[in-house]
Amino acid sequence: MAPGPRNADRVFHWSAASAETQGMYDESNSVGAVRPQHALFPEPFRLRAGAVLPGYELVFETYGELNAAKSNAVLVCHALSGSHHVAGVYPDNPMAIGWWDNLIGPGKPLDTRRFFVIGVNNLGGCFGSTGPASVNPATGSPWGADFPVVTVEDWVRCQAALADRLGIERFAAVIGGSLGGMQALQWAIDFPDRVRHSLVIAAAPKLTAQNIAFNDVARQAILTDPDFHGGHFYDKGVVPVRGLRLARMLGHITYLSDDQMAVKFGRMLRSGALRYSFDVEFEIESYLRYQGDKFAGYFDANTYLLMTKALDYFDPALEHGGNLSAALAGVRAGILVVAFSTDWRFAPSRSREIVSALLEHDCDVSYAEIESASGHDSFLMADRHYHDVVRAYLEHIEP
Amino acid sequence: MAPGPRNADRVFHWSAASAETQGMYDESNSVGAVRPQHALFPEPFRLRAGAVLPGYELVFETYGELNAAKSNAVLVCHALSGSHHVAGVYPDNPMAIGWWDNLIGPGKPLDTRRFFVIGVNNLGGCFGSTGPASVNPATGSPWGADFPVVTVEDWVRCQAALADRLGIERFAAVIGGSLGGMQALQWAIDFPDRVRHSLVIAAAPKLTAQNIAFNDVARQAILTDPDFHGGHFYDKGVVPVRGLRLARMLGHITYLSDDQMAVKFGRMLRSGALRYSFDVEFEIESYLRYQGDKFAGYFDANTYLLMTKALDYFDPALEHGGNLSAALAGVRAGILVVAFSTDWRFAPSRSREIVSALLEHDCDVSYAEIESASGHDSFLMADRHYHDVVRAYLEHIEP
Repeated sequence: MAPGPRNADRVFHWSAASAETQGMYDESNSVGAVRPQHALFPEPFRLRAGAVLPGYELVFETYGELNAAKSNAVLVCHALSGSHHVAGVYPDNPMAIGWWDNLIGPGKPLDTRRFFVIGVNNLGGCFGSTGPASVNPATGSPWGADFPVVTVEDWVRCQAALADRLGIERFAAVIGGSLGGMQALQWAIDFPDRVRHSLVIAAAPKLTAQNIAFNDVARQAILTDPDFHGGHFYDKGVVPVRGLRLARMLGHITYLSDDQMAVKFGRMLRSGALRYSFDVEFEIESYLRYQGDKFAGYFDANTYLLMTKALDYFDPALEHGGNLSAALAGVRAGILVVAFSTDWRFAPSRSREIVSALLEHDCDVSYAEIESASGHDSFLMADRHYHDVVRAYLEHIEP
Repeated sequence: MAPGPRNADRVFHWSAASAETQGMYDESNSVGAVRPQHALFPEPFRLRAGAVLPGYELVFETYGELNAAKSNAVLVCHALSGSHHVAGVYPDNPMAIGWWDNLIGPGKPLDTRRFFVIGVNNLGGCFGSTGPASVNPATGSPWGADFPVVTVEDWVRCQAALADRLGIERFAAVIGGSLGGMQALQWAIDFPDRVRHSLVIAAAPKLTAQNIAFNDVARQAILTDPDFHGGHFYDKGVVPVRGLRLARMLGHITYLSDDQMAVKFGRMLRSGALRYSFDVEFEIESYLRYQGDKFAGYFDANTYLLMTKALDYFDPALEHGGNLSAALAGVRAGILVVAFSTDWRFAPSRSREIVSALLEHDCDVSYAEIESASGHDSFLMADRHYHDVVRAYLEHIEP
């Protein structure tokens, strides 16, 4: 059974790129104008959680040229709020710059003159791939809360199906940060013959209780918003803005480092003088509320729930009795693990767990711990040392 | 003008004490049955923020005996969700154990055989002192959101008024943890002649941007709850349960240490098997939601807002151009500063800022950094080393 029609009107293209956070957009070394493509997979797809999707569709973008041997493909996996729009810009919207444009392009660390780069919106997403806002063919209405729980393993299998479609038997590399890094690691576990290198950036082998706790507060904010309507808000003409806004505000605190917040905002007052009211008093409040408002304006609440659950469930060691080394026994890809000193969401110690487990198998593993003030968000920043590490690693991969 | 009548029906007595977190209640070394008392202050009271309260009422408890010289009084200041019910138990409710009963009683670190101990519910509170649920005499309705913003300085002045009422010219000591510790420090600043010792536990000289950010997410959860009704929910027959619950869940994460959560909950599943749903999956979710539900059942939303604002505004160095040392120049009390190794809300480095500033004036300052797994909540726990430090310090105070 074919999936329902796309909800083109619900497709927003978020760009995390901004002059403030990720360096200036420079046309001269960008992949330039890009356009999304679509791939339909009409076969039923059994998810890890047991549910069966009646087919699905993925939206993706590609940059650079696939070589004749089809050996130079690099898959970019996105994190919680990311999308397939990884690099370049949309001709009709010059503000819509890809979220990792500072890393990917001609002459950049992931060099599109050498590699054929693919960005894909994950299943359950809200940027064009089949997700909760898509029409459930069984009901003729949006899936909403009935969209099944998806996992990192499910995403990797979908991405493999997309690779098949593009004639790519084996990726030169799979790369991702945060939840994207977890997908890069899962690729090396599930498809040892189909990935030559995995770049696992700002990730962890599984979430801690504290990580899960933050996710659950965010989910509860959405689930208890009266406008959520049990996940079926699309037909009600409302959006659970309050819940999404709180979820994003909270998430944002965990993406930044304490030090960075202190330097950037400190106790700076919005109006210059104390006002003793519940309006914005400190700059940090203004910043967070702005981030929350912006996010609630374009992101889908059901997708937010699904993404945080995928994070919670990621735990490759689980079916090996908690033994991460056993879970990684079959890895044959070369692995680059990158962590950032001020990342307290997934601290460097969490990355080192992955490195240690890989070293038990004499895996080809490299590890870089970058001094960076930007916390978890460092993986999105154009830090010179970080980019040099990624560049050097990728330069040694034969396309 | 006299304050409005108490809202006796709104007075709940929360006890943070539980066998789980603070050691068992032991009748043999408790102060035993206690009862709250009330003090009316009918004079207008100008608050730091500029507003004038038409008088107010404080609810308080006392344990032990005031000596003839009235020199053995110790004031206990409460934190965000605390109350005047610091020790002992209410005869009609054996579950209502004082929140610091493990520290205060005959033979305990704060020994009621030597000291006359006073606990007081702060202005703006919801346990019996004048607060947002009290009737505003100007309108005949509850103050609600019209209750003015109160600060640590205001509380200290109210506590001084209570001391006057009780005939106490000078406290042997003022003690508090977290926001309570800030009051203990403010006492030493504002009333150098009225406090011989301040015990400043698990506190900080001011909040960081990250601290304020967490507070603001909690406030936004309450302020955007449709049942908040702009703070005037009392007459609507509703309570902003959703917002309060989220605020408490979030707060709770910051009270516990990452390590403690890992040991206590880890990734333990509620039902023993993965269910792939948005119901409780992990034990940590169950715990947090339970804490949130419980809190939302008894705490006042307007008081929560006020308490977090008092935290945000605390910054004695502000009127000294950010110079904490200058702010503490007039301190004459002996100061004990206590911090806990795993407290990431107010880390030991924040306590050391206070110590360093005091040392610039040759103040009589002692500092203890306790190895404790319990994060910020450690100040409520019956840790032996912690209690030994407090005991030793208080034993050297002449009653």
